[in-house]
Amino acid sequence: MATITGVRVEDVRFPTSATADGSDAMNKDADYSAAYVVLETDAPDPAASDSAGPSGSGGTLGGYGLTFTIGRGNDIVAEAARQQAAVLVGRDVDELVADMGAVYRDLTADSQLRWLGPEKGVVHLSLAAVLNAAWDLAARRAGKPLWRLLVDMTPEQLVDVADLRYLSDALTRDEALAILRSREAGRQERLDHLERTGYPVYTTSAGWLGYSDDKLRRLCQEAVDAGYQHVKLKVGANLDEDVRRLTIAREVLGPDRNLMIDANQVWDVPQAIEWMRELARFDPLWIEEPTSPDDILGHAAVRRAVAPVGVATGEHCHNRVMFKQLFQAEAIDYCQLDTGRLASINEIVAVLLLAARFGVPVCPHAGGVGLCEMVQHVSVLDYVAIGGDLTGRVTEYVDHLHEHFTDPCVVADRGAGTAYVLPALPGYSTQMYEESIDRFRFPDGTYWVGETSVGGAPVRDTPVPDTSVRDTSGHVPH
Amino acid sequence: MATITGVRVEDVRFPTSATADGSDAMNKDADYSAAYVVLETDAPDPAASDSAGPSGSGGTLGGYGLTFTIGRGNDIVAEAARQQAAVLVGRDVDELVADMGAVYRDLTADSQLRWLGPEKGVVHLSLAAVLNAAWDLAARRAGKPLWRLLVDMTPEQLVDVADLRYLSDALTRDEALAILRSREAGRQERLDHLERTGYPVYTTSAGWLGYSDDKLRRLCQEAVDAGYQHVKLKVGANLDEDVRRLTIAREVLGPDRNLMIDANQVWDVPQAIEWMRELARFDPLWIEEPTSPDDILGHAAVRRAVAPVGVATGEHCHNRVMFKQLFQAEAIDYCQLDTGRLASINEIVAVLLLAARFGVPVCPHAGGVGLCEMVQHVSVLDYVAIGGDLTGRVTEYVDHLHEHFTDPCVVADRGAGTAYVLPALPGYSTQMYEESIDRFRFPDGTYWVGETSVGGAPVRDTPVPDTSVRDTSGHVPH
Repeated sequence: MATITGVRVEDVRFPTSATADGSDAMNKDADYSAAYVVLETDAPDPAASDSAGPSGSGGTLGGYGLTFTIGRGNDIVAEAARQQAAVLVGRDVDELVADMGAVYRDLTADSQLRWLGPEKGVVHLSLAAVLNAAWDLAARRAGKPLWRLLVDMTPEQLVDVADLRYLSDALTRDEALAILRSREAGRQERLDHLERTGYPVYTTSAGWLGYSDDKLRRLCQEAVDAGYQHVKLKVGANLDEDVRRLTIAREVLGPDRNLMIDANQVWDVPQAIEWMRELARFDPLWIEEPTSPDDILGHAAVRRAVAPVGVATGEHCHNRVMFKQLFQAEAIDYCQLDTGRLASINEIVAVLLLAARFGVPVCPHAGGVGLCEMVQHVSVLDYVAIGGDLTGRVTEYVDHLHEHFTDPCVVADRGAGTAYVLPALPGYSTQMYEESIDRFRFPDGTYWVGETSVGGAPVRDTPVPDTSVRDTSGHVPH
Repeated sequence: MATITGVRVEDVRFPTSATADGSDAMNKDADYSAAYVVLETDAPDPAASDSAGPSGSGGTLGGYGLTFTIGRGNDIVAEAARQQAAVLVGRDVDELVADMGAVYRDLTADSQLRWLGPEKGVVHLSLAAVLNAAWDLAARRAGKPLWRLLVDMTPEQLVDVADLRYLSDALTRDEALAILRSREAGRQERLDHLERTGYPVYTTSAGWLGYSDDKLRRLCQEAVDAGYQHVKLKVGANLDEDVRRLTIAREVLGPDRNLMIDANQVWDVPQAIEWMRELARFDPLWIEEPTSPDDILGHAAVRRAVAPVGVATGEHCHNRVMFKQLFQAEAIDYCQLDTGRLASINEIVAVLLLAARFGVPVCPHAGGVGLCEMVQHVSVLDYVAIGGDLTGRVTEYVDHLHEHFTDPCVVADRGAGTAYVLPALPGYSTQMYEESIDRFRFPDGTYWVGETSVGGAPVRDTPVPDTSVRDTSGHVPH
């Protein structure tokens, strides 16, 4: 018998604002952060001896999960996660992981905490962190990477973990089962294909708004050299600058590679339509987050106006009810669900099923902290067991902060374009090195303690670490 | 010159779960709570000598605001408010209150905190609390009740405080100004009318789900005796029980008084439609929160199916973008905006303008802690300056927890049905007695310290205070 003996939640913040990584028209000074949850157990960790580095588990099995924020307020999410995860302490590990639908229901049963959303904002982000840790624990206990634990489930098991509440006008349980059963044919072929080629990715590393033209040109060229067929740029702060930057990007990419653009919610609906009239000539595959993430009808109006340019959104789409409506309203061409924003696999499976039902390709949002590590599992699940198609699918990849993870994602071009190499170690790839936590824990990690403040402006007496801007071609195979 | 010298945020929780007040199909054990914000200044308080009781202001002017939660997690909202309000410390009071649009923009400018919503959940609730305190301060500094400060504004001033971002596809600034200008005729007559009759209210005190049939019957009769023309009941947990309870209510109310029902989000869309087929025979004026508050298209589908029964929602509608779509989709008959959920007057004015533009009556949500105190100001503003109509309007009133406020709302029947008597004291009526805070502050208030716990169930060694279930007719005139 193994028991969950404790919960540890850490507020980890990386000083990415110092290098303009992650800068866009809405978010100019992001410090990429994680509210990081550890479910501690007294079970031995069978993988402990294989570990590439210190796991902080002391040889016992743990579940590691996180949600992503961009700095201030990460402590608030961490505190919410602490309160939500408390109900798991003392629970039997094997009983817990045997019914992950029940775990979800237990964690969402507190009507007092529900009020603070419901199903949105801080309490939903923190719920994602806790559930991500629980799913990581389940996969580690099974000795499988999470994607394999999920594709090994029967249709009934997969539907039983999914939260289908509020969805029955668009997707009943029977319809969900029918989708999953229809995907049983060809599963092994699809899995073999992914094992050979990986899951296709695009890069956002080139196009942050705070980068100079020279840096933009160089990074676009590096992306081309690394085999990327898709590159995404940030737009929306200034039309003339957008035109200049897209001209550079299109020159480097040529006419055939895909260029995506992302406005990060800065426009009203009429403004999005007007602005896109000017940017359409760069032939973008999609415009991402053209307006408020809550504006389902607004996205639909933009989509009608800017076609054939596609509309994409999802990183701030806060739950399955919102995605249901984006599909019902025919508001988006690409579903960019987020593994730190939705309530982990339980809600993600529901959204993948909805997307399959409505025929909308899922191209998950990633970047941030640990999102790339998670989305690779989700995309494999989608192709093998739910969506069953790679047409129009491409998952985000951003080349930073992976060095803090014990099982970092790996991208490589194996002849079919740059792609995520399938994770092979047990878990959700969400465990961070304890050294990274000790260094970047806020406010008492060694990095942050080394900082002194003058007149409110942070002045660091240790150099800013090069946590990003790695050469996109410098990957080792997994 | 007067300065904001500090911010104090209190986590205040009332043990309402002990008496089933506030119980509904979704929320069975609510402990009505407030994240309470005090903006402290060094300005003398001209009203200090009039104060009916200890104000805790020490004779200096303060701004008092809150948002409402139902217990656990109130500390999380309080901490978010603390972080957001910090930017106000050191600011000049008169400069601040002279440009409340700028205050709103300053408090929402932090893109790192924005990420945690955006514009929803904990960070939006806490923003409401801080902005409510700022508006209270502005009204106190002007020596006016908040509704009067607002109706004394010119159309330009009122539009300048409103957040119209993301609304221009439904309401431009010019259209907003045109609505306000069109309401200038007849303002004085409408105000005179309200001064005479008050603003019409309905009561929810009778119909909490946890009440026995006898208590339900008695409270419905008391509501009739007190002059109420509208009574609301909770439904949705069990169809047979709903039929039994509505039969009792309709018997007592007779055929002509209005009966509203509230499902508190428990149904899926098809289930709502099916359930309402059974309850329609009780001729409810509206069904409130039939499904997820995020489900705009779902509400529209329910509305089409259940007409002529109306559909109402709003207490969990998290921002103006959601209300815009509820109006665009013709999803609701009644807009139940919430003064603790929306970002105070700045966002409420935007929603009132949208409602006027689309011709949807605004019947604000109240109850909770301090919501009644606030909505009376909003409803007066709406009738006098924005909506300009009382047809179909009735504002919620719940008879509990008012005794904790220094300027509690008052309802009375002055011949036109039970109504809120217009507040006369300066401010937003949001100041609580320091004694109440000292007693119910969590976890160290005298009430909570006096409680001991046996086997997880709270056993109080002080009697549960009678914070509710007051005789609905026992009001003193304001």
